[in-house]
Amino acid sequence: MTAHPRLSMNVATIKYAPFEDSLRVLLDAGYESVGLWREPVAELGLDEATKRFADSGLRLSTLCRQGFFTMEEGAARRASIDENRRAIAETATLAAAGAPRSRAVLVLVAGGLPEGSRDLVGARARIADALEELAPEASAAGVTLAIEPLHPMYASDRAVVSTLKQALDLAAPFAPETVGVTVDTFHIWWDPEAEAQIERAGREGRIATYQVCDWATPLPADVLLSRHYPGDGVIDFGTFTRAVEATGYAGDIEVEIFNQQIWDAPWAEVARRTAETFDAAVAPHLASVPAGA
Amino acid sequence: MTAHPRLSMNVATIKYAPFEDSLRVLLDAGYESVGLWREPVAELGLDEATKRFADSGLRLSTLCRQGFFTMEEGAARRASIDENRRAIAETATLAAAGAPRSRAVLVLVAGGLPEGSRDLVGARARIADALEELAPEASAAGVTLAIEPLHPMYASDRAVVSTLKQALDLAAPFAPETVGVTVDTFHIWWDPEAEAQIERAGREGRIATYQVCDWATPLPADVLLSRHYPGDGVIDFGTFTRAVEATGYAGDIEVEIFNQQIWDAPWAEVARRTAETFDAAVAPHLASVPAGA
Repeated sequence: MTAHPRLSMNVATIKYAPFEDSLRVLLDAGYESVGLWREPVAELGLDEATKRFADSGLRLSTLCRQGFFTMEEGAARRASIDENRRAIAETATLAAAGAPRSRAVLVLVAGGLPEGSRDLVGARARIADALEELAPEASAAGVTLAIEPLHPMYASDRAVVSTLKQALDLAAPFAPETVGVTVDTFHIWWDPEAEAQIERAGREGRIATYQVCDWATPLPADVLLSRHYPGDGVIDFGTFTRAVEATGYAGDIEVEIFNQQIWDAPWAEVARRTAETFDAAVAPHLASVPAGA
Repeated sequence: MTAHPRLSMNVATIKYAPFEDSLRVLLDAGYESVGLWREPVAELGLDEATKRFADSGLRLSTLCRQGFFTMEEGAARRASIDENRRAIAETATLAAAGAPRSRAVLVLVAGGLPEGSRDLVGARARIADALEELAPEASAAGVTLAIEPLHPMYASDRAVVSTLKQALDLAAPFAPETVGVTVDTFHIWWDPEAEAQIERAGREGRIATYQVCDWATPLPADVLLSRHYPGDGVIDFGTFTRAVEATGYAGDIEVEIFNQQIWDAPWAEVARRTAETFDAAVAPHLASVPAGA
């Protein structure tokens, strides 16, 4: 079996697979690239996970995820900043162990409103503060922090960064190789400014990762699990993919799906279906295969 | 009992109350103003509903709602345009029958993507077309069409107008007394541009109605029913209310809540609690009581 040379599957799409199995499933399905999560790496221990990842021959598209730094100064904030420091180091280690063209990209989910707070402006300002603390460490480690704007329905409890424009404004004070953005169709498809901001993100050199999955209604009871295979919903992948390609982005394209039905399906089937739906809905709109692929 | 002189309760907050009961409940709770829906009016017949509304002595804050005109040209679109024409006429009739300072404001929900379509840009363009057809009729009838941006989680199945900026851009070609916008905290609270766009809406004279209800998580299984009493969630009503007041808006402020638990509560209790929560969360931030109140 083969998968498109620019396709990466994020292991959260087969959430219940242990680290080793997730790599095996992707190799069997012909993938070259993978998006990893910190939790399965931690379960195995970083050294052992790094070794097994290196042995797999896969390349790294992103490491998910850290961030969650909207709280006010205090012990919890210090713990969060420290956790982000560890995540930066892990990203560098895993990317170095991956196949050529691995990307040292750490996806950042900002965090929601602190418990009991209604101060959205303050929470957003504290993201800027956290980036200022973390950017020098990311830069020293050669890691790109990829701020991910999340759909506005997650603004209160998960990420107060809700639009690509806002993510780019937060990234603006930093070098683009240190602070970039995650362009995820699921989160931004509704935004009238999305295409213009993708163009801007490209111009500013800040597209750290392009992620694709689909939106469909009705939303499930847990709206976190409302992501679908590309083509199974309403998102116009042609428009978004051409916009991203037009910026010159030639990196991996990651599929990351949180969906209980997909989590309950056999892992090999999910990997196969991810590759098939990517081929049908996304690949036809790609401008290029990267040099060296 | 009394309610704040600028408070209006939208009858959808007591969805199961027949027309006559909804008016009675509001009068008993000391309200001066009401937001009506077309369906209970239609059940009774426009003439009879208008008579009973006039007898109530309440004023009209808005009539909800029409719109739903994102489909392509054809019979369904013609039927929708005709329905909007009828809604404009009803708005004028009910506003004329209401107490002084009744507003002839018709709330417009744009509609989602047509079945099977992924063409968000096209759907949005067809809203502009519909407004062009309807604006002359609204103008002749003295009715303001109030485009309501809905939360982006409704973009696919209910309203492709997702931000206040987008609503204002759609309204721009028309006179502000003919096409304005609905500023509803629930739909726009997450938007980093919301305050700036409220300021713009005021400057352009386009705030047709200000509506308040709260956002809380977890969202219920039906995300349409996720609205809460002001103060029961995370929205900063101080910031939004001061921003709206700063524009000089001195009209009614409407509470409209879709929430199964609230729908299942006794109507009088809902009317009372709406007034109490408004007094606690919104009223302290009001700059003025309108002249003549």
